[in-house]
Amino acid sequence: MKLFSNIAHLVTPTGNIKRGTEMGELLHLENVAMAVKEGLIYWIGQEKDWPEEAEIIDLQHKSIIPGLIDPHTHSVWAGDRFADFEARSSGINYEEILRRGGGIRSTMKHTQAASVDELVELALPRVWSLIRSGATTIEIKSGYGFTLEAELKMLEAIRILQTKVPAHLISTLLIHVPPKDLSERKSYVDDICSQLIPEVAKKKLAQAVDVFTEKEAFNLEETKNILTASRDNNLQLKLHADQFHPIGGTELAVEMGALSVDHLEASTSVQIQALAKSPTIATILPGVTLHLGLPAAPARELIKAGAAVAVGTDLNPGSSPVFSTQMALALAVRLNHLSPAEALSACTVNAAAALGLKDVGTLEVGKCANFCVLNDWREVAYSLGMNPIQKIFISGKEI
Amino acid sequence: MKLFSNIAHLVTPTGNIKRGTEMGELLHLENVAMAVKEGLIYWIGQEKDWPEEAEIIDLQHKSIIPGLIDPHTHSVWAGDRFADFEARSSGINYEEILRRGGGIRSTMKHTQAASVDELVELALPRVWSLIRSGATTIEIKSGYGFTLEAELKMLEAIRILQTKVPAHLISTLLIHVPPKDLSERKSYVDDICSQLIPEVAKKKLAQAVDVFTEKEAFNLEETKNILTASRDNNLQLKLHADQFHPIGGTELAVEMGALSVDHLEASTSVQIQALAKSPTIATILPGVTLHLGLPAAPARELIKAGAAVAVGTDLNPGSSPVFSTQMALALAVRLNHLSPAEALSACTVNAAAALGLKDVGTLEVGKCANFCVLNDWREVAYSLGMNPIQKIFISGKEI
Repeated sequence: MKLFSNIAHLVTPTGNIKRGTEMGELLHLENVAMAVKEGLIYWIGQEKDWPEEAEIIDLQHKSIIPGLIDPHTHSVWAGDRFADFEARSSGINYEEILRRGGGIRSTMKHTQAASVDELVELALPRVWSLIRSGATTIEIKSGYGFTLEAELKMLEAIRILQTKVPAHLISTLLIHVPPKDLSERKSYVDDICSQLIPEVAKKKLAQAVDVFTEKEAFNLEETKNILTASRDNNLQLKLHADQFHPIGGTELAVEMGALSVDHLEASTSVQIQALAKSPTIATILPGVTLHLGLPAAPARELIKAGAAVAVGTDLNPGSSPVFSTQMALALAVRLNHLSPAEALSACTVNAAAALGLKDVGTLEVGKCANFCVLNDWREVAYSLGMNPIQKIFISGKEI
Repeated sequence: MKLFSNIAHLVTPTGNIKRGTEMGELLHLENVAMAVKEGLIYWIGQEKDWPEEAEIIDLQHKSIIPGLIDPHTHSVWAGDRFADFEARSSGINYEEILRRGGGIRSTMKHTQAASVDELVELALPRVWSLIRSGATTIEIKSGYGFTLEAELKMLEAIRILQTKVPAHLISTLLIHVPPKDLSERKSYVDDICSQLIPEVAKKKLAQAVDVFTEKEAFNLEETKNILTASRDNNLQLKLHADQFHPIGGTELAVEMGALSVDHLEASTSVQIQALAKSPTIATILPGVTLHLGLPAAPARELIKAGAAVAVGTDLNPGSSPVFSTQMALALAVRLNHLSPAEALSACTVNAAAALGLKDVGTLEVGKCANFCVLNDWREVAYSLGMNPIQKIFISGKEI
């Protein structure tokens, strides 16, 4: 038994999901202690009321918040996109960048060519950067493999990463880019449904399947086929939808009981209402807004309608080189106009719900003792370019 | 003599100022070595051509860029603005925040009440955060003191900070907030001109004087009086101008030969042309754009017109809690649409010019051996939320 004593402020959302205005409601406890047994929160109260022997860990009158949860990253990739970035920032358009061999297909080519060990080696510092920024649970997607073998290789890399870092890594199979050749699309989706998804389910290589549903990616029918196969294989569902065009992905995801729909920059009141009436989490990705200068997802409208909003980094080399979950939280306040309290709920309890997790995301008895130590809880939303997280504990152990 | 060997890429602007399209022109040298003698760059060339004995420092095939220069910070303050931030992010307006005792006057109150040692203690981690992000020269302004005594105290704190960090700190006297009472304004400006400025000049407590010229701050006549007194005391001139309203500050600053005009969010073609035709640097502050959601300074128009643009963090608790010079550089690419090369010029050679410095800002023979080591120079503009700077050398010494 460990007793974390001398906590000036314990600040946390409560429960398993925060919808609409509830997102702004945090529990604030002053001058408390927290007991941890076998990695779980066992007791929270006044230190003088603690009855047992315990190893005392003095938190020196600092504040604690739940460990952050990053529900949307593409942390595994090979190659870099510096040349694309330089070209785009100098005014060259995406078509020309593609013509030069850049864009997402360049990341796919390098990722396909890399070994599992190389992918692990490349991803480790990225994942550590997210962890040091406060993330104690991190989702990582495949999706740059394209071929069935390369997608499995990416998921293998994530499995190895799970053994190398103290944070809890959640793996998602992402069906990301359709074949260029129209005539190959049907057989590609068929192979995904009949071979890749069953294989991933059998080997437990992912907990969910995600599809990029968009005019330039998979259409609604293809998405439905992939999600149906996933459900038939007892995998949970997620969706990239409404990034550029609301083509019905969000409505489909809600209908099929997806854990989350992510992006939502182009969502209209139809999609917002669909999310508000469902348990599906609306995951927004402010890093893309900053990096590409595209419109921000309508977070205030989502909250007003009663939806549950989560925030992720979307860490990826092309559209969101955001290597800090804390920064994603801080950006959501500036770019999506969340309040600091709403942003904390979005990056903890709601991000947990976006991953189907009930054991993390709040500081309550019975939950994992994953928490961050900082001077003032508001610093997690306030600080730009300086990490306010001083210490991180996962299952009660300092990392 | 030190010889930094095995430099994969040395990337730097050249000269003492980069105007307009020159900002995008960087010198790229591949596979070079750099000799440093008494803190200055002594030689750059192929290692095989180096004739002398030297202490070899192997840079392991990494890249180097000049140490970044942050030409605009308010790193010294007491108190915090978390409550203001929380209120503002929850939709409460600035008038109500002021009514609650927040806003800049709360920072002034806490700064006035703090001792010099307290101010130093509070500023140190902020300055170190800027240094770790790559800044080897950092400007720090007074301006939260208001009373002559408190302004001198802030400058004393900066003088002590200069002895505590390896970076070169440049001190500026900022005349920031006029008296609330209209009847006291004239005597306040008179006291600044006849007492504070001569005292600061005599004690060499600052190299320049800066004035906040704005509808809600000092008017054009007051500004002119302060700048004239500064010039008479051999202090250099800077100006906060065009943040909200272009009331003539930029034109005055250019006419009086100011080193820089900073902010410029509200500049029109008149101010842009004035800057383009002068040696005065146009310093933009993208952190304010991100934090307050206000319009970005027209950097592309400035560059097109031929002005020399610099970028700073504007680190301060109210309008730009950006604790990383690298992040300011990266934000200027996203929010002001500088190319990575232009942003590097803005944060090195032009930032040096904004501080009147000719010995730093580029990697050329004769300049200070201040440089950052990283994998790829473009990372300094690309990375968000992860510090790409692996090592920092000031006067040839690793810090």
